[in-house]
Amino acid sequence: MGTALCVPLADRGHDVRLIGTPLDEASVGALTRSHIHPGLGCAVPTAIRAFPVTGLASACADAEAIVLGVSSAGLGWAAEALAPELARAPRPVAMVTKGLELADDGVHVLSDAFARALRARVPGCAPVAVCGPCIAGELARRVPTAVVLTGRQPELVAAFQAWLETPYYHPRPSPDVIGVQVCAALKNAYAMGVGLGAGLHARAGGERGSVAMHNLEAALFARSILEMGRVASALGGEPSSAWGLPGSGDLTVTCNGGRTGRFGALLGRGHRAREARALMGDVTLECLDVLGVLERALAERQLGTLSAADLPLLSLLIDLALHDAELALDLSRLFPA
Amino acid sequence: MGTALCVPLADRGHDVRLIGTPLDEASVGALTRSHIHPGLGCAVPTAIRAFPVTGLASACADAEAIVLGVSSAGLGWAAEALAPELARAPRPVAMVTKGLELADDGVHVLSDAFARALRARVPGCAPVAVCGPCIAGELARRVPTAVVLTGRQPELVAAFQAWLETPYYHPRPSPDVIGVQVCAALKNAYAMGVGLGAGLHARAGGERGSVAMHNLEAALFARSILEMGRVASALGGEPSSAWGLPGSGDLTVTCNGGRTGRFGALLGRGHRAREARALMGDVTLECLDVLGVLERALAERQLGTLSAADLPLLSLLIDLALHDAELALDLSRLFPA
Repeated sequence: MGTALCVPLADRGHDVRLIGTPLDEASVGALTRSHIHPGLGCAVPTAIRAFPVTGLASACADAEAIVLGVSSAGLGWAAEALAPELARAPRPVAMVTKGLELADDGVHVLSDAFARALRARVPGCAPVAVCGPCIAGELARRVPTAVVLTGRQPELVAAFQAWLETPYYHPRPSPDVIGVQVCAALKNAYAMGVGLGAGLHARAGGERGSVAMHNLEAALFARSILEMGRVASALGGEPSSAWGLPGSGDLTVTCNGGRTGRFGALLGRGHRAREARALMGDVTLECLDVLGVLERALAERQLGTLSAADLPLLSLLIDLALHDAELALDLSRLFPA
Repeated sequence: MGTALCVPLADRGHDVRLIGTPLDEASVGALTRSHIHPGLGCAVPTAIRAFPVTGLASACADAEAIVLGVSSAGLGWAAEALAPELARAPRPVAMVTKGLELADDGVHVLSDAFARALRARVPGCAPVAVCGPCIAGELARRVPTAVVLTGRQPELVAAFQAWLETPYYHPRPSPDVIGVQVCAALKNAYAMGVGLGAGLHARAGGERGSVAMHNLEAALFARSILEMGRVASALGGEPSSAWGLPGSGDLTVTCNGGRTGRFGALLGRGHRAREARALMGDVTLECLDVLGVLERALAERQLGTLSAADLPLLSLLIDLALHDAELALDLSRLFPA
């Protein structure tokens, strides 16, 4: 997604320098040689210059703004790597990283977690979170979408909106820093839930088509939106983000592709989580992190007055994904009479 | 859908009599001979007895309740056909008919329209509306789902809930008579909008897959939910129905199959509406009716303070579907900066 976001930036004429993490050496090499990103499977504008992590300081030196594209597991690394640069010259920061962090004082969205990590060295850092609906492979191919930007400093949100707006990429500001990012984090978990339907259908011997288990998927989708709104609200955000672009939009696109949906489909087929993960080659599943955070937050009563009973679909997903439970889907539990 | 709804009723042990309209002679014949419904493409429980329209009075004679499965165009016919029966012995009525009616005094949901049509002859008739997410072909195959029932008399809603609840079909009551039915009516129109994405992708030479125009579809989906909520609210309903089962759930399943999505995809491919309808064999498209009602309601200022500018996606769909406009999709108009 970091590379994909460089495409509208380059199309707007910005001088874009793409810096890999220590894990991105192969991608940086491929981009330098051919301008083709192996993960995205397509060429990116030649104006995007790729740098290995060793070039971070020089590539950042005169940058006006920094956009962070690491996964949630890399956020601590990124804070350390960027701290000297940001301390030397504070600049607007945007981030596409999705997830939630559980600290002693509660659950934090990642823009706040990043700001906290830098607080002592870069006071006043207020990252702008770039949320969906947007999958990277399509953004890199300039498929039109409208997305949501949010952050603690509205003028920085407006700045990134202006820098990113293109005929195909339309960022729109939201004041709901918490709700928007809660939805962005939870959509991976709930896409796994909606994916159960495709797996159950395949397990029953069904083929793809307009008659499948779409009724079930639709009920799970609506339940997901409801629960996302509850979690957003419990953490101090607005439930309305759950039915807008960050929730219903981003969940739609996440259900249409991506690893977590495939993981859910494997569980629907009857595989336990451990088996499903092995079948997927033990790839990173960001839904596991966010489910783990929410399970601990529920146990520690860090979700306001919410209990597991208020989030029956989330509780089912936690049992399936983290505790290797056998799937027994009972809609009357998800939709109490 | 009328036949499909007989499946949970029969599974609950009710004595179910399925009465065709004058247009259903072939289906009634097939059901009588083989218990296979030609449209659903599957067998239904043998306990369901099918009757031609000439058997309406005798089949209804001792019925405890009546469930109406006609399309919106058949609602007036159904009111006339059932008036003598209901006048003789008033009974609970449920209906799966979706649509909106524009009368001199404003827009009415169909449960109210049906009650108004019968007012003089069957005072106090308060139909229960059975809404989604539920496509008939899957209900007939007992795919699990949770759906919404609503009506002006909560005790009748509770009665139908009890009569219909099965291990795979979970009706849940909603007090939002207007909002739930507005969503049920509008989902066909908006599914056409989301379908534009698949058509635009095909037009660009793309193949089906996880990288397509799902970002665009997702943005259109979220916009649809927002606009559905606005219309529901303008007509006196609750916007929350738009993000629950009646809105986000039913739109999800409607986008996964069905005629209006295919119609939208043909428009996305570059066909004008007239051409697309001809390509589809001039089948009934319920989205055209509801778009026509909303266009007139906007023109006559029957949507409260809402104007076309508040509903840019709906306005685009009206232009495309009713005025044969050429598709020019500009997300910055659907999501004003």
